[in-house]
Amino acid sequence: MFEYDIIAVDPKTHARAGVLHTPHGDVPTPIFMPVGTKATVKGLLPSSLRDLGTKILLANTYHCSMRPGAEHIAEMGGLHEFMRWDGPILTDSGGFQVFSLSEHFKLSDDGVRFHAVDYGGEIVEWTPEENMRIAQLLGADIVMQLDQCPGYPAERAFVERAVELSSKWADRCWASHTRKDQALFGIVQGGMHLDLRLRSLRHLEECGDFPGYGIGGYSVGEDHATMFKTLAPLASEYMPRSKPRYLMGVGNPTTLVRGVACGIDMFDCVLPTRTARMGTAFSNEGRLNLKNARFRSDRRTLVEGCGCPACAGGFTRDYLHHLVRQHEMTGAILLSLHNIYYLLDLMRRARQAIIDGTYESFVADWEASDAVNDF
Amino acid sequence: MFEYDIIAVDPKTHARAGVLHTPHGDVPTPIFMPVGTKATVKGLLPSSLRDLGTKILLANTYHCSMRPGAEHIAEMGGLHEFMRWDGPILTDSGGFQVFSLSEHFKLSDDGVRFHAVDYGGEIVEWTPEENMRIAQLLGADIVMQLDQCPGYPAERAFVERAVELSSKWADRCWASHTRKDQALFGIVQGGMHLDLRLRSLRHLEECGDFPGYGIGGYSVGEDHATMFKTLAPLASEYMPRSKPRYLMGVGNPTTLVRGVACGIDMFDCVLPTRTARMGTAFSNEGRLNLKNARFRSDRRTLVEGCGCPACAGGFTRDYLHHLVRQHEMTGAILLSLHNIYYLLDLMRRARQAIIDGTYESFVADWEASDAVNDF
Repeated sequence: MFEYDIIAVDPKTHARAGVLHTPHGDVPTPIFMPVGTKATVKGLLPSSLRDLGTKILLANTYHCSMRPGAEHIAEMGGLHEFMRWDGPILTDSGGFQVFSLSEHFKLSDDGVRFHAVDYGGEIVEWTPEENMRIAQLLGADIVMQLDQCPGYPAERAFVERAVELSSKWADRCWASHTRKDQALFGIVQGGMHLDLRLRSLRHLEECGDFPGYGIGGYSVGEDHATMFKTLAPLASEYMPRSKPRYLMGVGNPTTLVRGVACGIDMFDCVLPTRTARMGTAFSNEGRLNLKNARFRSDRRTLVEGCGCPACAGGFTRDYLHHLVRQHEMTGAILLSLHNIYYLLDLMRRARQAIIDGTYESFVADWEASDAVNDF
Repeated sequence: MFEYDIIAVDPKTHARAGVLHTPHGDVPTPIFMPVGTKATVKGLLPSSLRDLGTKILLANTYHCSMRPGAEHIAEMGGLHEFMRWDGPILTDSGGFQVFSLSEHFKLSDDGVRFHAVDYGGEIVEWTPEENMRIAQLLGADIVMQLDQCPGYPAERAFVERAVELSSKWADRCWASHTRKDQALFGIVQGGMHLDLRLRSLRHLEECGDFPGYGIGGYSVGEDHATMFKTLAPLASEYMPRSKPRYLMGVGNPTTLVRGVACGIDMFDCVLPTRTARMGTAFSNEGRLNLKNARFRSDRRTLVEGCGCPACAGGFTRDYLHHLVRQHEMTGAILLSLHNIYYLLDLMRRARQAIIDGTYESFVADWEASDAVNDF
């Protein structure tokens, strides 16, 4: 049910093009997954996402399980039916939110106990088993194991303990996850230490036959050189070739282009919609902050030749500047459409370059462009 | 260029069905016009409005002239090009906003001087000539004369002076408006006094051959009985039959149904989008406040058989309740789509009933329904 077919490997980089089969449809890889935090992508309807070319959505387990609750979503027919998206869905474990959003959390081998500060400070206890129960109630096509994501910088000993805990939780998630129409991915942790990354990976490979692997704990404050120093060998040399590799929480264009070269297949991030709500658009010139007065009277669309509804619809930078300055919802909507399209299209073009065997020059073109410093 | 063809008159009410020809397309009447306050309908793109069946949009002169400015919009090609709406547009005069939004205004025969409180307190002076200059720069298909809209309740003497001033301004607007591709409508004021309404109307008829008439100064706090006591005879007995009649700023379904019976042809209001942003939907049961806990687990769509993207898309009241409770933009968007569709569809069905000669029973059905008390 969750076969992953690799259809092309770039001859000069580690990039691969593939197809991930899920119960709700096929996902071409490499792919960017827009994030529907609370069972909705902020500002965009499922029909618009479909029109943009979205193939798979992410929803956040933490938020969905707090409101309206996993039992409720299950009662309403599961996430797909609830949010009216009939394509593939991936849910994270919620661990990242627990460790970044909650005010107080207490870790033990058995799980995590936390105050959900966004939701009236309610006290929640997640064991790996409870986390898998929630994942199965939500009913996404792909779910992630519960893990502990350390920040950056972090003491090596702290990261090591996070790997140990995540490994134990991987065992228990694997043992308690039973839905056959749902793929459970393990998550590789280990911070910026390659040996810890490999220890984490080896444990996952011994634990069970995971149909895919998440790579967590990057893009937590480190610079690109630090990130790729361990990410590149991890992805390109050590991770099993036949399984999809998902770099979690990464959404800036340059990291996508470089990540694909290392053999990453899947990405997700709130960046395109969050920056859109702040008035910022991705472009081949780097990010455009539409609030800036220089866009007044600029009759150009955001990106020449772009096929998104904002650009193809002829909305000028001048008009977007007006909307953003006036805090109009339609500004955030047009920029969200553009930014998501930009990443989807970037990955579509990357995939074609891999199939054509020209991904190396695709990367070189990107590195030589004005967009490269945008992260 | 602005011919108004009446194609059917209901035999038992004063309702008429017509077609208003404009340079940007034909407008079937009766019609509801969604409001794009700052050159955008909050939360909805022009393509979505088109898909809903919108035939004509309204934009606010006050807001557009303050930001980004009428000269700027003209430089960008006018309102149609600026906001990427190629259908008909109507702009109000801005008088209503000046008298309701500005902190201090000073009236004289020559015009009005006001502080634009929403825009840094900037001091603005509008003579009728300046107001027409702005209207011509914005370039809508239909523009309204500058008028003074008294509130309710108001002293008769105050209303009388407002009629006198509005009449003088009508003369000056008529004299200074020169764009032949733009229709200038006069505005009938006079509060809840039929004799003042008729004085206002007579003056307009003597002033010039206005291609249409606005009716201002209703829906300012009075109850329905008070409103229709003068509105009904004004519209059905005294206003010229061959010209479109536009009841300004009215958007609740029941007033639309009753207004059409009196011979009103055009309506506009921010109500469908403003209430949507507050979590409220129009329905045949009256307004639904989706924040209400009773909608949790309600698997029905908002209105059975409704063709809007929210209902036809299968979004349940349960899901909308979740979105509204979580302050998600998509909640406001889905409810805005629904509410605008609801009014557009109400007027489409009203028009068909007029053509079929059955508008009297259309009104009777409405008056007998649960929706009737919704205003």
